[in-house]
Amino acid sequence: MSSSYGKIFKITTYGESHGKAVGVTIDGCPAGLALDLNLIQHELDRRKPGQSKIVTQRSEPDEFEILSGIFDKDNNQIFYTTGTPIQIVVRNTDQKSKDYAHIATSFRPSHADFTYFEKYGLRDYRGGGRSSARETIARVAAGAIAKQILQKIGVQIFAYVSQVGSLKLDKSYQELDLSAIDSNDVRCPDAAMAQQMYQLIDDTRKKADTIGGVVTCVIKGLPAGLGEPVFDKFHAELGKAMLGINAVKGFEYGSGFEGIKLHGSQHNDAFFAENSIVKTRTNFSGGVQGGITNGQDVYFNVAFKPVATIMQDQESVNENQETITVSGKGRHDPCVLPRAVPIVDAMAALVCVDFWLRNKLVKLTSLI
Amino acid sequence: MSSSYGKIFKITTYGESHGKAVGVTIDGCPAGLALDLNLIQHELDRRKPGQSKIVTQRSEPDEFEILSGIFDKDNNQIFYTTGTPIQIVVRNTDQKSKDYAHIATSFRPSHADFTYFEKYGLRDYRGGGRSSARETIARVAAGAIAKQILQKIGVQIFAYVSQVGSLKLDKSYQELDLSAIDSNDVRCPDAAMAQQMYQLIDDTRKKADTIGGVVTCVIKGLPAGLGEPVFDKFHAELGKAMLGINAVKGFEYGSGFEGIKLHGSQHNDAFFAENSIVKTRTNFSGGVQGGITNGQDVYFNVAFKPVATIMQDQESVNENQETITVSGKGRHDPCVLPRAVPIVDAMAALVCVDFWLRNKLVKLTSLI
Amino acid sequence: MSSSYGKIFKITTYGESHGKAVGVTIDGCPAGLALDLNLIQHELDRRKPGQSKIVTQRSEPDEFEILSGIFDKDNNQIFYTTGTPIQIVVRNTDQKSKDYAHIATSFRPSHADFTYFEKYGLRDYRGGGRSSARETIARVAAGAIAKQILQKIGVQIFAYVSQVGSLKLDKSYQELDLSAIDSNDVRCPDAAMAQQMYQLIDDTRKKADTIGGVVTCVIKGLPAGLGEPVFDKFHAELGKAMLGINAVKGFEYGSGFEGIKLHGSQHNDAFFAENSIVKTRTNFSGGVQGGITNGQDVYFNVAFKPVATIMQDQESVNENQETITVSGKGRHDPCVLPRAVPIVDAMAALVCVDFWLRNKLVKLTSLI
Amino acid sequence: MSSSYGKIFKITTYGESHGKAVGVTIDGCPAGLALDLNLIQHELDRRKPGQSKIVTQRSEPDEFEILSGIFDKDNNQIFYTTGTPIQIVVRNTDQKSKDYAHIATSFRPSHADFTYFEKYGLRDYRGGGRSSARETIARVAAGAIAKQILQKIGVQIFAYVSQVGSLKLDKSYQELDLSAIDSNDVRCPDAAMAQQMYQLIDDTRKKADTIGGVVTCVIKGLPAGLGEPVFDKFHAELGKAMLGINAVKGFEYGSGFEGIKLHGSQHNDAFFAENSIVKTRTNFSGGVQGGITNGQDVYFNVAFKPVATIMQDQESVNENQETITVSGKGRHDPCVLPRAVPIVDAMAALVCVDFWLRNKLVKLTSLI
Repeated sequence: MSSSYGKIFKITTYGESHGKAVGVTIDGCPAGLALDLNLIQHELDRRKPGQSKIVTQRSEPDEFEILSGIFDKDNNQIFYTTGTPIQIVVRNTDQKSKDYAHIATSFRPSHADFTYFEKYGLRDYRGGGRSSARETIARVAAGAIAKQILQKIGVQIFAYVSQVGSLKLDKSYQELDLSAIDSNDVRCPDAAMAQQMYQLIDDTRKKADTIGGVVTCVIKGLPAGLGEPVFDKFHAELGKAMLGINAVKGFEYGSGFEGIKLHGSQHNDAFFAENSIVKTRTNFSGGVQGGITNGQDVYFNVAFKPVATIMQDQESVNENQETITVSGKGRHDPCVLPRAVPIVDAMAALVCVDFWLRNKLVKLTSLI
Repeated sequence: MSSSYGKIFKITTYGESHGKAVGVTIDGCPAGLALDLNLIQHELDRRKPGQSKIVTQRSEPDEFEILSGIFDKDNNQIFYTTGTPIQIVVRNTDQKSKDYAHIATSFRPSHADFTYFEKYGLRDYRGGGRSSARETIARVAAGAIAKQILQKIGVQIFAYVSQVGSLKLDKSYQELDLSAIDSNDVRCPDAAMAQQMYQLIDDTRKKADTIGGVVTCVIKGLPAGLGEPVFDKFHAELGKAMLGINAVKGFEYGSGFEGIKLHGSQHNDAFFAENSIVKTRTNFSGGVQGGITNGQDVYFNVAFKPVATIMQDQESVNENQETITVSGKGRHDPCVLPRAVPIVDAMAALVCVDFWLRNKLVKLTSLI
Repeated sequence: MSSSYGKIFKITTYGESHGKAVGVTIDGCPAGLALDLNLIQHELDRRKPGQSKIVTQRSEPDEFEILSGIFDKDNNQIFYTTGTPIQIVVRNTDQKSKDYAHIATSFRPSHADFTYFEKYGLRDYRGGGRSSARETIARVAAGAIAKQILQKIGVQIFAYVSQVGSLKLDKSYQELDLSAIDSNDVRCPDAAMAQQMYQLIDDTRKKADTIGGVVTCVIKGLPAGLGEPVFDKFHAELGKAMLGINAVKGFEYGSGFEGIKLHGSQHNDAFFAENSIVKTRTNFSGGVQGGITNGQDVYFNVAFKPVATIMQDQESVNENQETITVSGKGRHDPCVLPRAVPIVDAMAALVCVDFWLRNKLVKLTSLI
Repeated sequence: MSSSYGKIFKITTYGESHGKAVGVTIDGCPAGLALDLNLIQHELDRRKPGQSKIVTQRSEPDEFEILSGIFDKDNNQIFYTTGTPIQIVVRNTDQKSKDYAHIATSFRPSHADFTYFEKYGLRDYRGGGRSSARETIARVAAGAIAKQILQKIGVQIFAYVSQVGSLKLDKSYQELDLSAIDSNDVRCPDAAMAQQMYQLIDDTRKKADTIGGVVTCVIKGLPAGLGEPVFDKFHAELGKAMLGINAVKGFEYGSGFEGIKLHGSQHNDAFFAENSIVKTRTNFSGGVQGGITNGQDVYFNVAFKPVATIMQDQESVNENQETITVSGKGRHDPCVLPRAVPIVDAMAALVCVDFWLRNKLVKLTSLI
């Protein structure tokens, strides 16, 4: 009951870190989309390990195969979605399961080892099993298809690293060149700050430690009307989607936690009309009012904790409740932020496409 | 598609502020629960207007009637749930629809007027219609039943106001007397801080303005194993539930946004065993690891923006995109926080019960 | 988890026979439909008891009230759907609960008394509680709104009684005047057969017994493309909807159980084109191919068992597994068929509207 | 939105006949089940082509691979379910796509070609694409896992061919040796009738034609209490599951269409108690009362139409609405019944497991 996301554009993921594969079924993708397969690989490459010195040095090619739901209707190597379920699989190849023998019965601090064991009575301990970040491959692949639908309607998503540890970018997204996100290994569009962050992450890595941070994300071009009253508010689903990413501890949109200090007279966004479009003079609302998009930019922050796997000895217990020492082994990220960016992108795209489809059904006048 | 919450303990709400009633259907409540009807009214009373000088002075008795799903099986005025849908209705009584004639075609800044109009092409403008906070009556009523199930398994929920504007309570929940939450009008368990907050809210009210704040919530006694891997992580659903409350702008749990500044070696929660129970020495995890509860306290913060309705003139546009002035009228809250507390309580209870039920289904050994 | 139907146009029902009310929440009704309230009452009247000598003589006015989701936007007593949940409630008024004291702990043969007790451990035994046919009021009310949407797109639904006991109408629906369905108490559009059926039902009633029958239903004007491949085939959902009506024992569509005797060469429906529309020369398919409507008439049969409540003594056991005699009491239908017709109508309408909405989402070209 | 089945034990299938693979994700399988992999292959072999002269002579090995959700926890080649999604894939190997070039733009009579084209605007025409019977591989594989759970609780499912064309087995299931189902190629447990049916199918094949029939199924050992009131009645879901199988035209359970001719006094099933178990003297109810199982045998019939693909010329139209002749080509079943048996088995198993899990959640007393 837990591995599906979305009401209309619905994805169901599967796979463990050291099982045979990870993958996703997309049910509800509209028919007739000519897929850009390179874009899917591009997004997977942005997520994959080994991209730079400051991320894990595992070597996982993460090449995908689509098993169903597309058709080369004109026999010209252009594959169209057919409206039936799209299955994307990525084989696991570089798994070194022996690296994990030492934790077969141990609970690593702040990992999911203990809670999975409590919940299920057994667990695939190798590489974290289902709780591994490899699971996000499925999200990124599905998100790369969602993004292609969004392109058709002029929606663009820009996630970037805005904080690492206490190093916080003090510029708003409007002051940044969002096309520069991928220009450095940190994925912070401000070159100077990126350099500082890089240094902090690298220093942390050398200390066999890890550090957290914030991904900021901006969605531009979203039509008004997306999101539902009451429980499925646009930002509530967006929040759930972000909080469902491994290591996320917080979510805020628009004015967020800072906005609470303001008075209503400061915080309210005045409406005005320009070229027959209703706009707001400020955007503390973050593009969402009453849970529904208003056509302004949607922006939000996602907090990631420091990675739990550290290259140090830690106190813990095992399945028999005996006190043990857990030692750090293997190849891990000192900071998850640079690789989290495409995952935030992907989840945002999935939320947007699903709500865009849901919104198609609400006005009788536009249905007949 | 939007007014239901929960997978097993599933609620579906309805109702507009100035329609005939608001209410909720609970489908999936287990049979055999002897309902404490007073507790339901008690929670509704905690939410209702007119409790003190610092909340809206509307007079809404908010008396509920249960239309189905319960049965006085022993003919002694003790009503048991039967396992069939429970319908709870609260009639709207104090509605002064004329107060809203002036905004029939106007878009109030930072309200849902514009987005509902964009989405549906028409809207019940009276009192905000479906976007009114009266909708939360349904949540509180359902939550009061969820709480009664949680009582049976020893789970307690404590929400309180921890910040108003810039006035922030600097004590952790462990330092507070959580039984004192309802001892003042602000619902802050620290009497001195409550007094300051009261003054701030009252001052704000006198300035015809509004102010935001934070509700902190602690859940004690939750068993380990609640929550699902991947998308339906315990904290992700909790986040969605909180972000679905009107005026919420942010959610964080455990170490939250502050935790990102720490190193993994500081942030990891070491396991130890005590009396055959696995516990953690610290609780930066906020009682959730890998999306699944670990038996420690769950705690989280919810940020509420300043109420959008202010008693001042504001610039805006109407449905014809003409520039207009919106004036403040009616009886409104200068600060939503004191009345938000029971709503946070209720949503937390709904999340906990639903996950508790979902968790009953995962181990074959416990099913046969 | 059991009282909801539909994916987009989603209804959730509640209510017991002798509780305070029965009702329904419709979530997902498109906004902007000007409701004909009389049509809702008309359909409820077709379902209600006491219409003729051959149905139960209970006197239930079954007047409905809409509590939410509609708005008289022009202040002229024309109520439009707003896109938010529509709650319809019908109070129970003529309930004589004392009639059921004798079965408080007894299991009536072929009723749901035993199975509810086994499942839930307790049950509202009065009038069958949730298993009462009064529950179908909710379906008929919701169906009457669904029908109004279908009217807008030219879809018509005609259910009628085609068999009572062994009296079987030997004419196909094409040979009948479907406008004559309501012209007699049996709701069989063939006057001669209706007269015979009436006599059979009345004779059965006098013998303190009951009898079963078949409702045939034709849906005209459905666009091609409704229904989904694989599990949610149009006829599979239709079958589920019909089998979910009390007392239904079988469902067949198109050539049904008879068609199995044919060879493929006889049974296949040849395509041809006429006025730029693809049609079939025969319609053994019943308007559905591969689970998706093809634009031809959809037709199907629904088998109803004889009503379980008979005015005779029957052997049974009680909750203590003691042998008892159950005696017939109260006012009951000797044959459920005449009153089942509007219920079949309603469920068919709900299936059609839901699939019509679902089908709006499948082609990218029509979405952008 | 269409390729998922089940609420708790939820399967999502994918795959086209001539795509790369077909498969299924099972989300919600309880943890701790030691899987018998041979049983999965055994069921796939019962479904696969080429088993005898009277089924299609295609050669598809249909070997499966499990990509996730299982773990060899003791390193002894016994794989346990882990509670995470189980992905099963079966590669397509014997596909001869050229066989279908002639129907690339043609609509075969009584196939899904036209309706898929209408719905999606394009279609994978090769071998029927998603509408191919190969899709049922996914159901059979998932059903084989469901069956292993049912074994643990003593539930057995027996589907068999009871009618081919007009050849109808006149014995009830109680008169048959249900262990003999697989003893002949027809899968009719009555040897004499099986012989006649075989001859009829073979004669039909020689005439380049096809024929329909009925599969009867009995479920023994089901506990009382499965199924939900109102829409998700046990038999309603069972009916939907069966009607969702390709070529099915009708479903009846218990007394079915025949039962309507009886009077209530004949049809009611008297209760009695034996060894502290409540039983019924007759079983016209088919083991289901008020939509909930009562502990007696569940039995039902499923009608299959004659296969649409015949080796004869047929009139039709193409995508341009031009009149064409469709010729029969390729290797096809003259009668789908023998291979439908394991599919009916599988779908019945999926329905039973899902309801068994759902029923675990209804009584508070058994939850705490």
